[in-house]
Amino acid sequence: MKGRFDLSLEEMKTYGYKIVDLIAEHWATLENKKPVATATRKEMDSIFLQEAPEEGMEANQVLDFVMENVIPNSNVISHPKFYSFVPGPSNFISTMSDTLATGFNIFSGGWLVSAAAAELEIVTMNWLLKMYNFPVKEGGGIFTSGGSMANLTALVTARRLKCGDDFSKAVIYLSDQAHSSNIKAIRVLGFKKEQIRIIPTDFEFKIGLNKLKNAIAKDKLEGLQPFCFIASAGTTNTGTVDPLHDIADICEDENMWFHVDGAYGGAAILSKKGARALRGIDRADSLTVDPHKWFYQPYEIGCLLVKDASWLSNTFSEKPEYLRDIEGNESEINFYDYGIQLTRRLRALKFYMSIKTYGLKAFKEAVTYNIELTEEVESHMRSSREWEVISPATLAVINFRYNPIGANLSEKEIDTLNQQISQKVMESKEAVLVTTVLNKQVVLRMCLINPKTSMEDVLSTLQQCEEIGRTLLT
Amino acid sequence: MKGRFDLSLEEMKTYGYKIVDLIAEHWATLENKKPVATATRKEMDSIFLQEAPEEGMEANQVLDFVMENVIPNSNVISHPKFYSFVPGPSNFISTMSDTLATGFNIFSGGWLVSAAAAELEIVTMNWLLKMYNFPVKEGGGIFTSGGSMANLTALVTARRLKCGDDFSKAVIYLSDQAHSSNIKAIRVLGFKKEQIRIIPTDFEFKIGLNKLKNAIAKDKLEGLQPFCFIASAGTTNTGTVDPLHDIADICEDENMWFHVDGAYGGAAILSKKGARALRGIDRADSLTVDPHKWFYQPYEIGCLLVKDASWLSNTFSEKPEYLRDIEGNESEINFYDYGIQLTRRLRALKFYMSIKTYGLKAFKEAVTYNIELTEEVESHMRSSREWEVISPATLAVINFRYNPIGANLSEKEIDTLNQQISQKVMESKEAVLVTTVLNKQVVLRMCLINPKTSMEDVLSTLQQCEEIGRTLLT
Ligand SMILES: Cc1ncc(COP(=O)(O)O)c(C=O)c1O
Ligand SMILES: Cc1ncc(COP(=O)(O)O)c(C=O)c1O
Repeated sequence: MKGRFDLSLEEMKTYGYKIVDLIAEHWATLENKKPVATATRKEMDSIFLQEAPEEGMEANQVLDFVMENVIPNSNVISHPKFYSFVPGPSNFISTMSDTLATGFNIFSGGWLVSAAAAELEIVTMNWLLKMYNFPVKEGGGIFTSGGSMANLTALVTARRLKCGDDFSKAVIYLSDQAHSSNIKAIRVLGFKKEQIRIIPTDFEFKIGLNKLKNAIAKDKLEGLQPFCFIASAGTTNTGTVDPLHDIADICEDENMWFHVDGAYGGAAILSKKGARALRGIDRADSLTVDPHKWFYQPYEIGCLLVKDASWLSNTFSEKPEYLRDIEGNESEINFYDYGIQLTRRLRALKFYMSIKTYGLKAFKEAVTYNIELTEEVESHMRSSREWEVISPATLAVINFRYNPIGANLSEKEIDTLNQQISQKVMESKEAVLVTTVLNKQVVLRMCLINPKTSMEDVLSTLQQCEEIGRTLLT
Repeated sequence: MKGRFDLSLEEMKTYGYKIVDLIAEHWATLENKKPVATATRKEMDSIFLQEAPEEGMEANQVLDFVMENVIPNSNVISHPKFYSFVPGPSNFISTMSDTLATGFNIFSGGWLVSAAAAELEIVTMNWLLKMYNFPVKEGGGIFTSGGSMANLTALVTARRLKCGDDFSKAVIYLSDQAHSSNIKAIRVLGFKKEQIRIIPTDFEFKIGLNKLKNAIAKDKLEGLQPFCFIASAGTTNTGTVDPLHDIADICEDENMWFHVDGAYGGAAILSKKGARALRGIDRADSLTVDPHKWFYQPYEIGCLLVKDASWLSNTFSEKPEYLRDIEGNESEINFYDYGIQLTRRLRALKFYMSIKTYGLKAFKEAVTYNIELTEEVESHMRSSREWEVISPATLAVINFRYNPIGANLSEKEIDTLNQQISQKVMESKEAVLVTTVLNKQVVLRMCLINPKTSMEDVLSTLQQCEEIGRTLLT
């Protein structure tokens, strides 16, 4: 039986090198590719639908098939002209470091199984704790599959600490701009819709503090328990940071848990301007940041930080018998006690190796560059007769629409026009540029967190939009 | 700014090849390594604790440091003598396929972002659905980070479908041998301890059906709502499969959700004996299987299968505005609507490429080999005067203890003896062999799902144990 799945050393190397070549060439030629790829279910079915094959085939043939059919039918998330959603710029060192973690299949659940894996998570977590001015000694955290799981993990912890077992009267507050993963988590955790207060935002998409206070007061009068507020430190739509200090004050006064969702915007702490925008973030009880977004890591790595690591272990530890031999002393952390996953990959390795290799300075410069680029785009639009800025450069997001002076379009016409511009850009495959809705207006949105994106890239896309716009208007 | 993180094509290839070499050589020399590595927090701190460095350093230096300090301080989960917990045998093709997914940083949340990623998940899910005789047309599923998340996803779905928003009277049933991730999930979802019934198991560690019926009847009389049963298809401790047909009948009669946790044992379906043991598994409403266990995939890939895919989308879809442009038609699945994660890696790729390359037959033969090996180990022990089988070969788990005929040891002495044997084996670093507790007895446990593990490996470990045991007894 030995060797059923085994390849010879030579075979492994040849196969591995080929994959490295493919990836390296992809990275080296990224700019020359088109970021957009679309396909219907029918097209995909016709290529891929088959039964599981009984017999194997040449590894290279399978690989060639994947390169011909999978890769070209996926958008290039790390392309400089991928402007939408939250791009995934990634980096090569982390890609290969992640391979190391996979190749050695390192289990990162328990100290006894891999002390080094746990230690790397502790060390990189310390780096993050320090970045956000969280206490390194009592503080702690855990790497998760992404921001959604980090937010969910935070809310389980908040509920446990603030409500114990009975949360029937608990109420949770967040703004109408908070990320949908929070609502999803709240519902998954078993809160009813009636236990959620979605507080309207102001012109700048920050939570309305007065409205928040009113809601809390009213709930208390009704005998309910306001127990948690979820602030956004960088909304996905507009990059807006809620007024963290004010919210922290409210949470302190009301004995509420203060969670900050910085999945997208948290990395801005690395730049001077970003740190200013994030003032008060260190007052959070728990904080989600997402290395696979603006810390330039490949998928998946999200992160939850908390002020006191014991909050996590008190919430998540369950001790089955067959794990009894792997309990160490207190300081030998079993990360399966800090969250939901038992089996966990070594997510920390890529974060560790990329920061050690590039240096934190490179990350700081990149984040600063991203923010400045977005501001430059804003200036450009402000001085243009065709573009209207709807939400200004905030962290690295800007929302705008094509609305030439003198065209005198109705709101509805502007909506349609911008929707069509987005469609035509996507059809050209030149850039990923989709719309969002702000104050009921359909707007174009750019999230410029890719350090490869240059002002020329943006200008060329805007020019493309202008040409499409003009054609549509005539 | 361009190129802050960029390496030249040559640099990328050199770095990538080096990592491939390290992994390939690891795989080629696995047998010569020791699977055990232990280190204290203090030791680890002295090696790793440092501030995040401002300046970067040579990529190779970082890599060398990791190879010298991270890898040797991690147990080798895929080593043939890693017998404990659930081993992670993995395979090389999947390792490198996973690298491809990372290298191209493919986002597998929405169809519009990567049609091919969604399609691969659909196709491989179909393979699994068919394997378990689930309906391929209406059925569906999702790849998760592991078994824990698959179980949690199942329970959210079960609660939504059976209880709607009010689950205050809901009761959930599982055996005392069910995996701890289930209890963890139940608690995370907001059920109270009083809503959980842990049903005792019989001699063979199967759930006691009569006890289950009594519990359900009693709960109904008290006005509670029995809504879900979690069966184990392969308990972690002993490999035991609960009587699935009988439980399915009960669930049908009581209108309860029938979830099967086959995270560890589900893969046994690939062998004749396993399929027999798993009879009735196709009657589950939802089923957890875990490709990163006995389907030989590297971490992380778990999987949840359901009889009707719309159950998942009805439970998990939330539609934020900035995702509005990425809604396709019904058949163009957005997997973020099927579970908790929004950003998702392309987990399906490694599963797809390894099955295409090796062929399903290789997997079938490997699983069959694992089961037969475990039976052979049982026969060997039955004919030995020193070993006592405590729980027979079941799927690929066997529990036993060193208890030589004529030594006349008390139960307590046997416990201590076996605990010490485990300790000494671990200290020798020759094998990972820890204890578990069955019927209050401390026993040694082997989970033999690594196709590299040979009878000689097992015999040499048993011999080592015997020698330790004899020395301890004198
Ligand atoms: C503010 C915010 N929170 C949470 C998330 C969810 O993160 P993930 O996609 O990693 O699950 C996102 C994703 O865009 C986000 O922007
Ligand atoms: C039966 C069973 N269910 C669930 C799990 C949890 O799976 P994971 O470790 O992938 O989260 C395990 C892990 O050993 C298991 O054996």
